[in-house]
Amino acid sequence: MDVIEVPDPGDPRLADYFRLRDVNLRKSIEAEHGLFMAEGDKVIRRALAAGFAPRSLLLTRRRLEALADLAAEVDAPVYVVGDAAVERLTGFDVHRGALASFHRRPLPEPGDVLRGARRVVVLEDVLDHTNVGAIFRSAAGLGVDAILLAPRCADPLYRRSVKVSMGAVFAQPYSRLTDWHGGLDELRGRGFRLLALTPGPGAVPLADALVREADAPVALMLGSEGDGLSSRWLDQADAGVRIPMAGREVDSLNVTAAAAIACYELTRPAGGAA
Amino acid sequence: MDVIEVPDPGDPRLADYFRLRDVNLRKSIEAEHGLFMAEGDKVIRRALAAGFAPRSLLLTRRRLEALADLAAEVDAPVYVVGDAAVERLTGFDVHRGALASFHRRPLPEPGDVLRGARRVVVLEDVLDHTNVGAIFRSAAGLGVDAILLAPRCADPLYRRSVKVSMGAVFAQPYSRLTDWHGGLDELRGRGFRLLALTPGPGAVPLADALVREADAPVALMLGSEGDGLSSRWLDQADAGVRIPMAGREVDSLNVTAAAAIACYELTRPAGGAA
Repeated sequence: MDVIEVPDPGDPRLADYFRLRDVNLRKSIEAEHGLFMAEGDKVIRRALAAGFAPRSLLLTRRRLEALADLAAEVDAPVYVVGDAAVERLTGFDVHRGALASFHRRPLPEPGDVLRGARRVVVLEDVLDHTNVGAIFRSAAGLGVDAILLAPRCADPLYRRSVKVSMGAVFAQPYSRLTDWHGGLDELRGRGFRLLALTPGPGAVPLADALVREADAPVALMLGSEGDGLSSRWLDQADAGVRIPMAGREVDSLNVTAAAAIACYELTRPAGGAA
Repeated sequence: MDVIEVPDPGDPRLADYFRLRDVNLRKSIEAEHGLFMAEGDKVIRRALAAGFAPRSLLLTRRRLEALADLAAEVDAPVYVVGDAAVERLTGFDVHRGALASFHRRPLPEPGDVLRGARRVVVLEDVLDHTNVGAIFRSAAGLGVDAILLAPRCADPLYRRSVKVSMGAVFAQPYSRLTDWHGGLDELRGRGFRLLALTPGPGAVPLADALVREADAPVALMLGSEGDGLSSRWLDQADAGVRIPMAGREVDSLNVTAAAAIACYELTRPAGGAA
């Protein structure tokens, strides 16, 4: 452990932590340097436990004493910054007192996470980091074997996703398709039945479909927040499935709620039976 | 319909729309005047369809033409305000182009929403408006008979709750307990079995508990985002129930995801069986 007081928020050693609320700037900083951010001691510890290598840890002076044990665990520079300087640097009040920058690892190939998997979730274009984080938390908590992301889906290692997931993004096996157009061929080639979650006509209740597919590996596809699945992916599905609605004026669930129910059904013992 | 151009964002006729992002200010304005805000034409139409009486409608000049049919439906003054003035007035860019202020109605008593109800959700101290809105959307969409709120639970008619719920707060029967301490007596007196959602030891899988209680009216209690249910309410429950977790490092779901699964199980045909 190497604790370094940094008085100047413009110090280049703190560059990883610059303007954390500027989504576009952050995307380019994080891509260029191959880093991601973790916030709060619990989430930082989960990243360490999952084997991610820290680039540095940043502690606010106010919380330094309380977080000394975290600093001792980190094999990287530990920067201590005054509270006002942290706010100028990052753009917000880091009330948990700890941020860490980690090296990203190469993502596994889709084939690597699909090997041996039987219950998979495929996210087409979920664009909101909060939703991606919440879906990963549900998937990891309930035991989904793997998540596949379409090329345009939001980044699970973006700070907001990591935070909302409470670090579940570190525990959940996932990969990203590089090809939207033919991306589902990989799943079909491995014998997965493709179920599309959709409120459209002809969709059968999810639980019934899973009972029917009890012996097959299943990939459940979810679409974007506003528009759902693309017609191309819907056309490639073996069946459309739905969560039965009560028929009040409310005709759909938000994507986080729908994904939670989908993960729950997917991972129930005996594939959907109570 | 009475369309009125209002050039000055400080005009007292626009007072209902002042500083919509200032949560504390809004709470006192809305309580004092007995009003709530709806945003976007779809949600505004749902409030009208649910019989709420509008106080006024505010349209941005840019969207006036596209929303003329909405203006025609509203039996209250329609204020048209320039885009820059709207942003100064409300504190944000009203990109949907429509806001409406509605009169609140007296909430029904708990007994009124419980009469004939068999599947009820009780929220103890869910403090976040986004979570309350998402939970109402799931409950209304899946067909929960009633929601009861503890005294400290966030307001379903606060703008953010209304928006996240997509107007489901207008369709979902609910009431608020005035007494936290003895509030569950009303449920017990009406023969409800009280199930507490908790990860604690001794909790049984939710689906199993519901099969067992198939013939009884059930009230499922959910606690706050951080701490879950209070020990007082846990002690009063007939049983603790849990959503089975996969045993990875992720040991819980967020409250929106947990509530979605809970509402789904509560409203399945035959009380939990597939």
